[in-house]
Amino acid sequence: MSYARQMLDSYPGARNVDAGLLAATIDALTDCFQACIADVDADLGEQDGPNLVKCIRLCLDCADICSATIGITSRQTERDPNVTRLLLEACTAACKACGDECEQHAPYHAHCRVCLEACRRCEQACGQLLAAM
Amino acid sequence: MSYARQMLDSYPGARNVDAGLLAATIDALTDCFQACIADVDADLGEQDGPNLVKCIRLCLDCADICSATIGITSRQTERDPNVTRLLLEACTAACKACGDECEQHAPYHAHCRVCLEACRRCEQACGQLLAAM
Amino acid sequence: MSYARQMLDSYPGARNVDAGLLAATIDALTDCFQACIADVDADLGEQDGPNLVKCIRLCLDCADICSATIGITSRQTERDPNVTRLLLEACTAACKACGDECEQHAPYHAHCRVCLEACRRCEQACGQLLAAM
Amino acid sequence: MSYARQMLDSYPGARNVDAGLLAATIDALTDCFQACIADVDADLGEQDGPNLVKCIRLCLDCADICSATIGITSRQTERDPNVTRLLLEACTAACKACGDECEQHAPYHAHCRVCLEACRRCEQACGQLLAAM
Repeated sequence: MSYARQMLDSYPGARNVDAGLLAATIDALTDCFQACIADVDADLGEQDGPNLVKCIRLCLDCADICSATIGITSRQTERDPNVTRLLLEACTAACKACGDECEQHAPYHAHCRVCLEACRRCEQACGQLLAAM
Repeated sequence: MSYARQMLDSYPGARNVDAGLLAATIDALTDCFQACIADVDADLGEQDGPNLVKCIRLCLDCADICSATIGITSRQTERDPNVTRLLLEACTAACKACGDECEQHAPYHAHCRVCLEACRRCEQACGQLLAAM
Repeated sequence: MSYARQMLDSYPGARNVDAGLLAATIDALTDCFQACIADVDADLGEQDGPNLVKCIRLCLDCADICSATIGITSRQTERDPNVTRLLLEACTAACKACGDECEQHAPYHAHCRVCLEACRRCEQACGQLLAAM
Repeated sequence: MSYARQMLDSYPGARNVDAGLLAATIDALTDCFQACIADVDADLGEQDGPNLVKCIRLCLDCADICSATIGITSRQTERDPNVTRLLLEACTAACKACGDECEQHAPYHAHCRVCLEACRRCEQACGQLLAAM
């Protein structure tokens, strides 16, 4: 069981959404956050750096937004549903934009394939959480 | 002239929005980011902590979202307008929610008055940037 | 295999440390980062909030430093060993301080038990990475 | 008066260091945090990207560590002097490494000149805070 799930199960108050769904989203966010940071770095280590500038940019954005979304979704106390929803929409869009760009480079760079997978999983998880809210 | 403005003026490519407006938004975001972190801490130092739980939660959210928005608005290269817009909407909502809560405590706590002002200024700046995009 | 390990295995350049050790550290850092954020929130949801102020403070510090350390350890390109070492030392100290405080509350609060475990694992992982550098 | 200073002056408890010195450090940290993010982006917008890979890497590190240090120095409640000191040492080293690299590019790129100045000012401020602790 992930730490995110264990933390949710030991929260002293009531939760507003299913703990399994929420924990899966938080796990997908932390994976995507780290994969995007690592993909920026791997892109910088490639010879065809100029082709990867858009990929680097979108990975930086996606990492920043995932980090904020980890915070907002990890907190249950005095949650603001409006702020949560808007941020999840921004995060879903960032994961989609980053995943679409990684897909262009996936045939040539294994690290973009891994990052693509992390972005798609996170986009899907945020979409499912939005639908359940 | 702020560092944010100097960095914008030395950017090698074309900018999509007015540099003065953008720099003012970035400055408002960094002020709000720091004020929210400090307000969480000042709330924890107060005797009436239980009354300030909602304020702490909304300041934590606002700081996280401002931090991500500093990143996205500070980058000009290969900007994604859709992600930028959605994040600015989330940030505007977070500043409004946090400012509204700080306003409840402003008569009793000077730090909530300062944080309220930083949130209102940031909410307004993000709204103006959204309107200009 | 974790995303952190997959990203390391697809990095185009040479790595300076064992991939298994590095990936284990990054995974421990992301777990500790999220557990500390969630423990702040769980503490805020408890009735005995005033007893938990020190725990909240140290969890906030630990989350911030883990987040920075995720970035620095996830990047291989043009690594600065001095900066990496100093940050790992700060992170080890933050995990120890936070873990020691969580240990005081672990008999009463399950969420502090989980956070304690995440802090101890992260402290150990950072210490092993430091020793291998 | 900066927001950081106003927040410090309205803190309900006792401060351990001079408010003017602490506020100047926090202001230098937020400037350096944003300048490093913007310099990464400006580097990505240049034609000689491959020459700037080390600069991008060190700016990413410096931004991450400044962000964590903003958090730790902005909090007064239940401060851990050991963690604060170790993080300030890591931050000083990150600012120095990033400033030294920006200095190489300052004759050719105005944005590296601005970032160099922000890094040097932040390195100095963190060093003065360390000396006063």
